[in-house]
Amino acid sequence: MRELADTRVAVVGLGLMGGSLAGGLRGQCRAVVGVARRTETVETALARGLVDRGTTDLAGGVRQADVVVLATPVRVILRLLGEIGPLLPEGCLLMDVGSTKAQIVTNMAALPDHVQPLGGHPMCGKEVSGIAAAEPTLYQGHSFVLTPLLRTSETALALGRALVEAVGARPLVLDPHRHDRLVAAVSHLPYLLACALVGAAETTADADPTVWDVAASGFRDTSRLAASDVTMMLDILLTNRAAVLEALNVCSVQLRYLSYLVEAGDEEGLRTALSAIRDRKLETRNLKCGT
Amino acid sequence: MRELADTRVAVVGLGLMGGSLAGGLRGQCRAVVGVARRTETVETALARGLVDRGTTDLAGGVRQADVVVLATPVRVILRLLGEIGPLLPEGCLLMDVGSTKAQIVTNMAALPDHVQPLGGHPMCGKEVSGIAAAEPTLYQGHSFVLTPLLRTSETALALGRALVEAVGARPLVLDPHRHDRLVAAVSHLPYLLACALVGAAETTADADPTVWDVAASGFRDTSRLAASDVTMMLDILLTNRAAVLEALNVCSVQLRYLSYLVEAGDEEGLRTALSAIRDRKLETRNLKCGT
Repeated sequence: MRELADTRVAVVGLGLMGGSLAGGLRGQCRAVVGVARRTETVETALARGLVDRGTTDLAGGVRQADVVVLATPVRVILRLLGEIGPLLPEGCLLMDVGSTKAQIVTNMAALPDHVQPLGGHPMCGKEVSGIAAAEPTLYQGHSFVLTPLLRTSETALALGRALVEAVGARPLVLDPHRHDRLVAAVSHLPYLLACALVGAAETTADADPTVWDVAASGFRDTSRLAASDVTMMLDILLTNRAAVLEALNVCSVQLRYLSYLVEAGDEEGLRTALSAIRDRKLETRNLKCGT
Repeated sequence: MRELADTRVAVVGLGLMGGSLAGGLRGQCRAVVGVARRTETVETALARGLVDRGTTDLAGGVRQADVVVLATPVRVILRLLGEIGPLLPEGCLLMDVGSTKAQIVTNMAALPDHVQPLGGHPMCGKEVSGIAAAEPTLYQGHSFVLTPLLRTSETALALGRALVEAVGARPLVLDPHRHDRLVAAVSHLPYLLACALVGAAETTADADPTVWDVAASGFRDTSRLAASDVTMMLDILLTNRAAVLEALNVCSVQLRYLSYLVEAGDEEGLRTALSAIRDRKLETRNLKCGT
């Protein structure tokens, strides 16, 4: 398998994640080809200098690629995995950037033998989507999970690592099920809490719309993820149901305990619980979360 | 009662809120006197130019004040309300910036007749506390709730409004119980959700510490409020228990519904619920929340 600098990379899906990945890779490999459904997206990617070439034709876009990265919502990735195998050249590395991994890796296992599959999930993003929000620096400083299969060769994994490092991210190799459990706790759960918060505020607003006049930055930040793209989040939730339900359950236990302490007026219990949580939050504040 | 420009204002408590209020008022009234428990705090306030004079002596600090603003945690305000009346000159306007209002206003009703009480709560803040974080612009563009009592005169309320406007905030007159219900939904609930999220992540981390390596900006922002000062939050929760429990209850209903939809794999139900929430979030994104 080639060095990254010698490879032609095709990025399928030019939204926030795909457009940013293409832009970050451009100039670090032989060519970056962008594949999108809509002509306007391809034109924007070219105009913004995020790709060397662009096309709406999947077969043409990936035919000569050494590396193909699927950067669409999860369930489109699952569908593409069923179609793309025969379109890929011998030895092609096929990666993805989907937010859940177990189901994707299961489907990857069924790819034809001439393809080298490697699951991926960069731990960055924004609550806005689309190529307009893409930026080549999006991945810098973030963890980028890689989930190799048993059939994935060492050289394919090394090329995947090189690609991750080329956009400034840190490769983190994980089992796909373990990945899905972890992101349920720190990514999918926060999304659902943000949604429940907005839903609760809406219920309050039904009786008294003045609630929006007293909502401040605490509400705004805690509910930020509720603005996430719904199709993307649906795919994530529906392909990670067991882990999401488990995370919700763990969180409900926490909420019920805090609720019990408030109801009981248990000042010492509440101080102990909230102080431990605050200490942990302060320790994690400097996580490499980017901006 | 005087115009704001003619008044001497004493701010009791020089943390984030008091220090910022003093700094924002300075130069817009005859003098701003800062009162703090610790000499170092007074010195910092003077060095940072947030006050004209400073003292650790409450009686001396408020003796000649036309306006006194209590800017301590809620339960310190409740205690001060029981002591400060006899120290205040005739006609003095006594305000506060405490985050809950019903209990404070009840205690204000027992103040001696020569004092004009007015509850207040600015809808701004940060998750950091202390005078080091204070900035004179903190209040700019934010709502500032005022909760007058039956005994509060029109001229006292007008002076309170002038003070709020002097620091760049928008006065919003509300009944104290209504205030407490509204902030439970958009301020105290987000804090508890942030805490539950950190607690749940901690539970996950107990089994697999790698969870912190995959935590990204979504986790960071949704959990931001968990870093809030515990003493301040304890006072808020314990002086607003009924409204906080009601907000938790409304939120639990939302969470259970989302959880049910995920468990059932009800794609259409989930899309409908999450889309409505996203629309509402986008509508509220441009709330005057400041930074």
